[in-house]
Amino acid sequence: MKAVRTIAELRDSIEELKSSSNKRTVGLVPTMGYLHQGHASLIRAAKDQSDIVVVSIFVNPIQFGPGEDFETYPRDEERDLDAAEGAGADLVFLPSVETMYPKPTKTKITVADVTSGLCGASRPGHFDGVTTVVSKLFNIVQPDYAFFGMKDAQQVAVIEQMVSDLNFNVKIMPCPIIREEDGLALSSRNVYLSPEERTQALVLSRSLRDAEEALEKDQIRTAAEARDLLVSTIQKSQLAVIDYVEVAAFPDLSPLDDDALISELDEPVLLALAVKFGKTRLIDNRLLHPKGE
Amino acid sequence: MKAVRTIAELRDSIEELKSSSNKRTVGLVPTMGYLHQGHASLIRAAKDQSDIVVVSIFVNPIQFGPGEDFETYPRDEERDLDAAEGAGADLVFLPSVETMYPKPTKTKITVADVTSGLCGASRPGHFDGVTTVVSKLFNIVQPDYAFFGMKDAQQVAVIEQMVSDLNFNVKIMPCPIIREEDGLALSSRNVYLSPEERTQALVLSRSLRDAEEALEKDQIRTAAEARDLLVSTIQKSQLAVIDYVEVAAFPDLSPLDDDALISELDEPVLLALAVKFGKTRLIDNRLLHPKGE
Repeated sequence: MKAVRTIAELRDSIEELKSSSNKRTVGLVPTMGYLHQGHASLIRAAKDQSDIVVVSIFVNPIQFGPGEDFETYPRDEERDLDAAEGAGADLVFLPSVETMYPKPTKTKITVADVTSGLCGASRPGHFDGVTTVVSKLFNIVQPDYAFFGMKDAQQVAVIEQMVSDLNFNVKIMPCPIIREEDGLALSSRNVYLSPEERTQALVLSRSLRDAEEALEKDQIRTAAEARDLLVSTIQKSQLAVIDYVEVAAFPDLSPLDDDALISELDEPVLLALAVKFGKTRLIDNRLLHPKGE
Repeated sequence: MKAVRTIAELRDSIEELKSSSNKRTVGLVPTMGYLHQGHASLIRAAKDQSDIVVVSIFVNPIQFGPGEDFETYPRDEERDLDAAEGAGADLVFLPSVETMYPKPTKTKITVADVTSGLCGASRPGHFDGVTTVVSKLFNIVQPDYAFFGMKDAQQVAVIEQMVSDLNFNVKIMPCPIIREEDGLALSSRNVYLSPEERTQALVLSRSLRDAEEALEKDQIRTAAEARDLLVSTIQKSQLAVIDYVEVAAFPDLSPLDDDALISELDEPVLLALAVKFGKTRLIDNRLLHPKGE
């Protein structure tokens, strides 16, 4: 495995790997580093699917809003390089902010509609930052496949929309959420949690599982009932402050009518949460397939 | 030469040309068709520079504003195919609106600052439409070089900014304005002009040439004097209605201070005009290099 920091070096290294053997397809795993088993699962999926695996590690300033945690976002380069190598990466791209933004970008990519609810509503400008940096990475790496975790389900939906609208020649590969044994979805931000917050944060995955079960057992049927159940479950946790609880069609993320019967919908339905514990904002979700996968 | 209408067919054809011989580099000439000698010069430049020349012909609806001439923009596919072949094109891509926009695009690319004056000010949203379609074409064709005429100098500046900000792996090749013998800059829209308008439209190129001469002879020195001379020259033409007359730094297109001494500026200076004759809006410009090329 090779670690590179400049765009020219990365392009040369990919070219070299391609020509040195019969390796043809490139899989990209874009990350903000502080890699955990969720990232490792993306890298392994990339390894299964593609000849050359590129992992990018870049805490992208333009997707953080004022007052968000850009400065304090956890970073550990050495551990990340070990984790990436262990999971099968061929190249790790660790650009500086100056490499990615030698001057402040004047160009932004904006996706309408899909970004208007959920994290897009709570974090104005966040997805412009995501689509802009992801398109830069796509142009730098020119991957055949790009791997994203479904924990950021809206991010997957937004990037799929961008790729389709702009004809990027890359296939987006959404990968399942990886959880701790007790259900907490893996996140680099979990390290912010105090022991008490860590315990109470289990309410996210539990509320989602409970809502899915209640839907399966027909104890609840409508979008409003699902939302209400999620909210009332989360509110039992004293430290939880709800940012949003949404029930939306996937992948267009249009909100469902209150009385929409979930089991009768043709498209997948996303139950999505963002909840704060102290200063730490966590997200989780569950994608339901009422009509089967 | 081969004409193709779908994205898959185009990608396959490029792949085929690349693998059938040692042809490696691809040059793209994006056009809206109704090809004239200006376009032909771009295609010839592409032929000189690259192994495979792709010409796209697409009247892009999203770069036209309400009340602009999208519906009536001149089209002549048969003549265009002959012209493209004559100039050396290998592939001509003629997508339908449905091919380029199977659904209305939710994704837009916006470039700030460079788009705020000149045509960007007169045509709100125009450059979002241009950058969005050009990035689609870049992603479809994945060219090494892309050729644009300097008649749309602001378009060149906007696309250079986008390419730099988004790390597109393509080199933008600006090509000189091609003119009729009497000085009129070639434009597909020239066919709209009545004989009287056609005669009076010469005031565009003449005013630019006169301003450059007056600057060279030190008869005028400042940006305000250059602008005033351009305006007064154009106003001598009875049918001319000025849209804008601008003197700006190139390529960032920041307006110059009124008392800026043009001969002492380090960066190139763009004299740029948009003038209406009846319903026809024409543009022209001249790029000055006060400190040499």
